[in-house]
Amino acid sequence: MVAKWVKNALGRMVPTEINGQDSIPFMGVGKFKPQKRKYNCKIPSNADYPLDGNKKVKDLKEALQKSGLANGMRISTHHHFRDGDLLANKVFDIAHEMGIKDLIWFPSASFPCHAHLIPYLEDGTIARIEGSMNGPLGKYCSEGKMKGVAILRSHGGRYQAVQDGEVHIDISIIGASSADCFGNANGLNGDSASGLLGFALVDSQFADKVIVATDNMLTFPCVPWQIQGNFVDFTVEMESIGIPEKIVSGTTQITKSPDRLLIAELTARLCEEVGIIKEGFSFQAGAGGTSLAIGEFFRKIMKEKGIKARFARGGSNKYLVKMLEEGLIEYILDGQTFDLEGVRSMRENPNHVWTSPFTSYNYHSKGNFAGMVDVAILGATEVDVNFNANVVTHSDGYLLHGIGGWQNCLFSKTVILPIPLFRNRIPVVRKEVTTICGPGELIDVIVTERGIAINPLRKDLLRKLKGSSLPIKSIQALKKEAEAICGVMDELVLSDEIVAAIKWVDGTIIDVVRKVV
Amino acid sequence: MVAKWVKNALGRMVPTEINGQDSIPFMGVGKFKPQKRKYNCKIPSNADYPLDGNKKVKDLKEALQKSGLANGMRISTHHHFRDGDLLANKVFDIAHEMGIKDLIWFPSASFPCHAHLIPYLEDGTIARIEGSMNGPLGKYCSEGKMKGVAILRSHGGRYQAVQDGEVHIDISIIGASSADCFGNANGLNGDSASGLLGFALVDSQFADKVIVATDNMLTFPCVPWQIQGNFVDFTVEMESIGIPEKIVSGTTQITKSPDRLLIAELTARLCEEVGIIKEGFSFQAGAGGTSLAIGEFFRKIMKEKGIKARFARGGSNKYLVKMLEEGLIEYILDGQTFDLEGVRSMRENPNHVWTSPFTSYNYHSKGNFAGMVDVAILGATEVDVNFNANVVTHSDGYLLHGIGGWQNCLFSKTVILPIPLFRNRIPVVRKEVTTICGPGELIDVIVTERGIAINPLRKDLLRKLKGSSLPIKSIQALKKEAEAICGVMDELVLSDEIVAAIKWVDGTIIDVVRKVV
Repeated sequence: MVAKWVKNALGRMVPTEINGQDSIPFMGVGKFKPQKRKYNCKIPSNADYPLDGNKKVKDLKEALQKSGLANGMRISTHHHFRDGDLLANKVFDIAHEMGIKDLIWFPSASFPCHAHLIPYLEDGTIARIEGSMNGPLGKYCSEGKMKGVAILRSHGGRYQAVQDGEVHIDISIIGASSADCFGNANGLNGDSASGLLGFALVDSQFADKVIVATDNMLTFPCVPWQIQGNFVDFTVEMESIGIPEKIVSGTTQITKSPDRLLIAELTARLCEEVGIIKEGFSFQAGAGGTSLAIGEFFRKIMKEKGIKARFARGGSNKYLVKMLEEGLIEYILDGQTFDLEGVRSMRENPNHVWTSPFTSYNYHSKGNFAGMVDVAILGATEVDVNFNANVVTHSDGYLLHGIGGWQNCLFSKTVILPIPLFRNRIPVVRKEVTTICGPGELIDVIVTERGIAINPLRKDLLRKLKGSSLPIKSIQALKKEAEAICGVMDELVLSDEIVAAIKWVDGTIIDVVRKVV
Repeated sequence: MVAKWVKNALGRMVPTEINGQDSIPFMGVGKFKPQKRKYNCKIPSNADYPLDGNKKVKDLKEALQKSGLANGMRISTHHHFRDGDLLANKVFDIAHEMGIKDLIWFPSASFPCHAHLIPYLEDGTIARIEGSMNGPLGKYCSEGKMKGVAILRSHGGRYQAVQDGEVHIDISIIGASSADCFGNANGLNGDSASGLLGFALVDSQFADKVIVATDNMLTFPCVPWQIQGNFVDFTVEMESIGIPEKIVSGTTQITKSPDRLLIAELTARLCEEVGIIKEGFSFQAGAGGTSLAIGEFFRKIMKEKGIKARFARGGSNKYLVKMLEEGLIEYILDGQTFDLEGVRSMRENPNHVWTSPFTSYNYHSKGNFAGMVDVAILGATEVDVNFNANVVTHSDGYLLHGIGGWQNCLFSKTVILPIPLFRNRIPVVRKEVTTICGPGELIDVIVTERGIAINPLRKDLLRKLKGSSLPIKSIQALKKEAEAICGVMDELVLSDEIVAAIKWVDGTIIDVVRKVV
């Protein structure tokens, strides 16, 4: 199946061909220069669409049939409905009913609710998944049960791949909490509101056929149009497309773990000491318990010092919204809303701005927003002594997490990973990570409950921290501490067979995931 | 110069080659089906742009030099600054200084202020203009003084031509009243506010190099981003890019001419009688004196009957804004704002929505907004007995007006041309128009001060108007009345030489303009 193996710039062995398509090994940050042109869709004509703009068809099945659903096609969906998504499952139920085989599912991410699709992977309705997998599907893939090789891309990488024509989408199905019969759609209003639809933007722009499905069909115009109807072939009204309480599942709570709180405090203190938290600065943090705690520490520092941030990047949540409404942040530039407060704020507040993987993260454009963020605070499952980090696999080799915007955010001015030194007595800081998702040269600081490691490349940070009372250590020292507590782990033995490939933001292969034995 | 002449579907002789490029004769509405693919830009890489997103260069000259300005290039600008534009003139001043020759200027429209460029047409800095010309440049072109053949396109046709790769833009210069150093830009805020920047959208998306120039450079992010910085190569801060009082030149007054008021009243009464003015309807009218009067008649009828429009299309003006604020219109879908009230409303009111030639008018997409408008009320310089109409030339052959969105609006459900029967003793309704800009099959009603003609294709309207007290006449009768008053005009004699081609919305040639002798 695999033509040839080569060592990429990070020393990982990667194949030069995946699923019958040539692939380029990772060449280093900014080293691969695309020589091709963007994907060019067929030119449509208004003459082939209803004059009055009404593209509504009876139901999803009719939309799929009219879109020419056939064996082997690549079908895309988005993940704004998260674990409350009903639509992707419905699409493949219909495909299965119709006896369609060998589909490639190209979601922007998949969730536990999509375990529903495992029987379709078993019976050949779906040949493979190209997209991040959270939970059961990842486990299924890890065990080598999927027919083809999975391909994981960052949010920006997904935009890049479609734009560049690496991935051709036959049919895209876009679920929207509001739409009109022309296909204008948004995620701001209606029962299934998820805030925005940015993950489906590239699909709408480049797929051969585009279907908008909604449980809230409005009279034209549906305003604002996060998805433009001019890209849409068919619209469908459905009773339900998502389970509201699972779409916006409520805010994660701020961590109460003393270790995590310490990590959060150390992270905030470091940002304060090196001068990141200053008038007009910008930041991006996740929506996990530790990240939320860091946000709260930031908030305290900003209030005390009278500092205002120019912008924060979302995933938004009620804490970030509060900072916006208190005037501590001028703008939230948001990629996805994690709770109802985020949705409300985005709907009401013009300074809570919806963005897309194009504006925020696409590496094959004339710049993107990531590089303008002063500090990005991200997670990781593992980090190695060269600061390379993993976000997709656990140390036992199982592929259980998506990449999200993680790789894209590494281009922020300072990247900090606040992580525990070990989890369940397994060291997080290690000699080598199971899967490299991001190159160490882009990762600046590791904050653990037992010390902070600064990437030696960041001499400026090291200089600023001279004489600091913060527990600055070398990454090797952190690794040793972890091993002193947990012992040295046995080397993980995996199959030679690859089950997934991890793309870098430029479409090259940064690493592969092997079958768990 | 011209390879071959053929008769197009409207019986007009048109060349099969213009400026050395193949051209397709108009084949009838909806008949030409594009077989090609959209233009595909080279794939850029973030690696070639500043990591911190700051693309600011010293001045416009440096931006043009870094963009590789060279002989023969196609340079685009937009016309949101209208007769107050300083930027396009400045661009060619610099090109002239640099000794660059044979440029093709591709504006979205040109205005009297651009007479400044005539010396550059004379000295070879500019070879030709591809774009609508209002006033002096049109006269210059009509007299055969331009080196190449001008090409006029509608707003939607301009988007189509660039998207389809018929027109390749080397460098686009986008003036914006607000921008950030990354290139995000809008026309909503700042001294040079023009409301929106939609006419430059396609340029930003498809030009090789994109320059954003502003007199109001903001700290990132400039929100909202009507132009996305991810498409922008260089940004420039300038002292002035437009003359504010000429950008938004103040509202045209409602006509006081008794004849025009009669035309307006007849138009509104007709719309009322045939049931166009009903709950949830939509309309588009211009910003001329007669159109404004029609709007006022609509307003009265709507108020009396308690009718609310779902949306109105702009060009917006203070009258339309008033209707929005009174709740008579739910949404204004706006393509350009004609006065400061329009700008204010668009800035403040989320129901005053900025659109683009892509959403509104592009014929080579999966539908556009034009077909969803119940009634479009448009102007014309001439109409013939087959309802074909002219908007670009006068009856003396001079090319003095742009096409604007006129052709695109012909796809509205009902198209009404309220026009005087004659102007300066020259009949407006005639046997043949000097230049066909729109095919008669799309034009439904001609309203003059001396009678109303309904296109025989609109049997439904004729049926509804049976027994009406409105002065319904045949178009031939209107023509005879005009001739009875003005006499029969001598046939216009023009040169065989063509000076301009008029494109239809699908890129085919609907007519040509000949040199005035």
